[in-house]
Amino acid sequence: MLECHLPFTIQNALIPTEQGYCTVDVQVDEGRITAIEPDLFPLKQPIDATNQLLLPGFVNAHTHSSELWQRGIIPPLPLELWLAELYDFTPLDPEQIYLSALGTAVETLLSGGTTIVDHLVLIPGQEAETIAAAVRAYKEVGIRAFVAPLLQDLSMESNLPAGGYDGVIRPYVCSTEGLLELVEWAVEQFHRPAEGINIMVAPTGIQLCSDALFAGCIELSDRHHLCRHAHLLETKAQSNLALEKYGCTAVEHLHQLGFLSPQTSLAHCVWLEDTDIPLLAKTRSTVVHNPLSNLRLGSGIAPLLKYRQAGINIAFGCDGSASNDSQDLLEVIKIGTMLHNTTNLDYRHWIKPIEAAQMASLGGAIGLNLAEQLGTLTVGKTADLVLYDLTRCSLSPRTDPLGLLIWGRPTQAVSSLWVDGKQLVANGMVSTIDVDGLKQELFQRSQWSSDRHSPTVKQTEVRYRQVMGLP
Amino acid sequence: MLECHLPFTIQNALIPTEQGYCTVDVQVDEGRITAIEPDLFPLKQPIDATNQLLLPGFVNAHTHSSELWQRGIIPPLPLELWLAELYDFTPLDPEQIYLSALGTAVETLLSGGTTIVDHLVLIPGQEAETIAAAVRAYKEVGIRAFVAPLLQDLSMESNLPAGGYDGVIRPYVCSTEGLLELVEWAVEQFHRPAEGINIMVAPTGIQLCSDALFAGCIELSDRHHLCRHAHLLETKAQSNLALEKYGCTAVEHLHQLGFLSPQTSLAHCVWLEDTDIPLLAKTRSTVVHNPLSNLRLGSGIAPLLKYRQAGINIAFGCDGSASNDSQDLLEVIKIGTMLHNTTNLDYRHWIKPIEAAQMASLGGAIGLNLAEQLGTLTVGKTADLVLYDLTRCSLSPRTDPLGLLIWGRPTQAVSSLWVDGKQLVANGMVSTIDVDGLKQELFQRSQWSSDRHSPTVKQTEVRYRQVMGLP
Repeated sequence: MLECHLPFTIQNALIPTEQGYCTVDVQVDEGRITAIEPDLFPLKQPIDATNQLLLPGFVNAHTHSSELWQRGIIPPLPLELWLAELYDFTPLDPEQIYLSALGTAVETLLSGGTTIVDHLVLIPGQEAETIAAAVRAYKEVGIRAFVAPLLQDLSMESNLPAGGYDGVIRPYVCSTEGLLELVEWAVEQFHRPAEGINIMVAPTGIQLCSDALFAGCIELSDRHHLCRHAHLLETKAQSNLALEKYGCTAVEHLHQLGFLSPQTSLAHCVWLEDTDIPLLAKTRSTVVHNPLSNLRLGSGIAPLLKYRQAGINIAFGCDGSASNDSQDLLEVIKIGTMLHNTTNLDYRHWIKPIEAAQMASLGGAIGLNLAEQLGTLTVGKTADLVLYDLTRCSLSPRTDPLGLLIWGRPTQAVSSLWVDGKQLVANGMVSTIDVDGLKQELFQRSQWSSDRHSPTVKQTEVRYRQVMGLP
Repeated sequence: MLECHLPFTIQNALIPTEQGYCTVDVQVDEGRITAIEPDLFPLKQPIDATNQLLLPGFVNAHTHSSELWQRGIIPPLPLELWLAELYDFTPLDPEQIYLSALGTAVETLLSGGTTIVDHLVLIPGQEAETIAAAVRAYKEVGIRAFVAPLLQDLSMESNLPAGGYDGVIRPYVCSTEGLLELVEWAVEQFHRPAEGINIMVAPTGIQLCSDALFAGCIELSDRHHLCRHAHLLETKAQSNLALEKYGCTAVEHLHQLGFLSPQTSLAHCVWLEDTDIPLLAKTRSTVVHNPLSNLRLGSGIAPLLKYRQAGINIAFGCDGSASNDSQDLLEVIKIGTMLHNTTNLDYRHWIKPIEAAQMASLGGAIGLNLAEQLGTLTVGKTADLVLYDLTRCSLSPRTDPLGLLIWGRPTQAVSSLWVDGKQLVANGMVSTIDVDGLKQELFQRSQWSSDRHSPTVKQTEVRYRQVMGLP
């Protein structure tokens, strides 16, 4: 987080209300919202927000920053084959981790996100350096970050249901104990919630983690008050695997292990059984919806309207740039809202723009156990705030501001953004780091290519097609 | 179209090839591509396209420009109720038609579209003025335009299956003959293919048109060599209506009438029976896929992979801004490609980025009977060309250019664009009209609002819920 905490007043901002919209001034001091009223006496730095919409910051509640290096390049493949290609070419240099975390943070900010959950792929043998590089990036940008080291203690061959496969499943290179020690080290080194950097316990998911790893993560979470994060039932293959492995659904198993809680956020949740839904509701777990990744990988359409009707908290995630391939939260919110209109004929259940914005802000905050501090425009809450310039061509003409923002395709709409009361975006530009320099670094460390071939995809494909019943 | 036809050379552009990409120079003279080779001797105006991707222009193959005035404001409703609200507040001033056509054209250009199909909602009593206003706008911008006056000779109550309804169905205000005369007048006045302005015959669809109107359109199309356009089976309600009205599917009926042809493009095609698919293939009709509108209105997911496997030509449309609510073709192509991965487990049928780009360019050209002139980078074809700046932050780092463009969320990526060899976009800005002035006009003629109420939605809702079996 940045150092200074100057008081300021946002003047004449449009904000949503129960009845529609009103125009207010918002005072921020010591990183908190101290007043929301029309015509306040301005503090030191008045900011003119005429024709701008003020919203609480959104949460990019699930991503993998280092996938930025493989944006746009993995061919259309389902998760299990896509993963094989991803890991054949995953970056192996902590400096790359640092740069892609910067890039992912910049895109998140410029689409209204003030908080990021980075389910961070660790470089084998340089796990600590990976975490340190990502933390460094997020501190420099100033975005509120939840760094969630991606843990697995089973090898990639465990990823698929057996389905007649009799190949060798190798043990994984990292031990369960070693992984838990790594997280404990990361907590000691970097977990500073008051400074905007948080470590999460984040097993990959049931497909790559032992029960002992889940149990160890629960213990760490309880002892250090850490949020919990995992993938859950992203694909049909994972759903089949869970039944084969546990004799019950993955949700039932995670519930028995005690992993589900109000501090637990679960990415994807595409293949839940109807009977799983009350378990998520009862444990007050959060579903992180990653609609674009789910489409890109053909994973399916998560039954979001059912989750809403069951009272489950929902947040939005971009997922990594190799499966989306963008970190534009507004696009995710748009598609993640409209997509579900096709799943229920009764339009009275369809998600309204204001509800979508609330899921992206308050829903995200709830999933990170931060609803007391973030997610709404409320006096006393922390000032993670975003101003959207409603005079942009892509938001013209004037109609319903939230309808335009959520259903439109706003470009360069974020004009100002604050995290913890510190300004990270001004005049539509990220002001805390050298974005042009970053762009040049990304450019120079990459090259145009279209014909790379993943050996592991080839190896995995025969088994995948057999297991999934493909000809 | 603009006047001048200066020769120019695009230098060092990246273009897709069978094997990947290569870097070439492209010469354009008299509006045509005259050479595509490395290291050409530059004509008068060399244009440096280093690190830029050159593609043939895309076609926005179905939109309704005047809906721009209602972008973002209509609540989540299915088509039949959404239409009720749309028409309660539709613009009634030809100057508004002109401005929204300008705005729609600008957004199409800035997302890679060089051709637009405007299924133009006519102001009752000012039908001719409406058409003239749209044509004026497209001429000024210079975009290749197909103006398709939206014809209906049945009243809005005809829009739904009877389903027990015994209310009065009023006759429509326009006569069939009057509508056909209007189109004939528009053809005489404005149909100038060589100048980039085309009139289409465009009955709304089976739900609002008599057989006589279809027959008259076919006759006009044959006599004046006009392309044909209509909505087709956008909703389940329309599919039910067709069976009730004709005793066969809408596609069978349109085929019997002779409306299907290689010059016929059909918007939506969500609710076709499997037996309809060979009819579209046999008649070489084009399906215009409008994925975002279909999601927003909960219409459903068109079975695009089935159409592709049957060899049907496919193009992409944004649909009007009240049902999308953007005119960003790149967004439509992205979602309209990935969405279908969820409909077929076998990833070998999933659409690749290069195929998506071909559908958007050549697919669009085929649907408008322009495949000989447009849709590919070919010597002798007309120079409707787009350069994408691959150094944009949203397209970083360098990987596969088409993967980044189609699957990413490019912002400000279109750097230069030509229609008929005339430059309409330079340095990322539309250069033919005053876009800032347009933005101000749109702003001043509109106001923030969120609580408008449509009387017709209220009236229609009871019948809609009854017919659709909603409680």
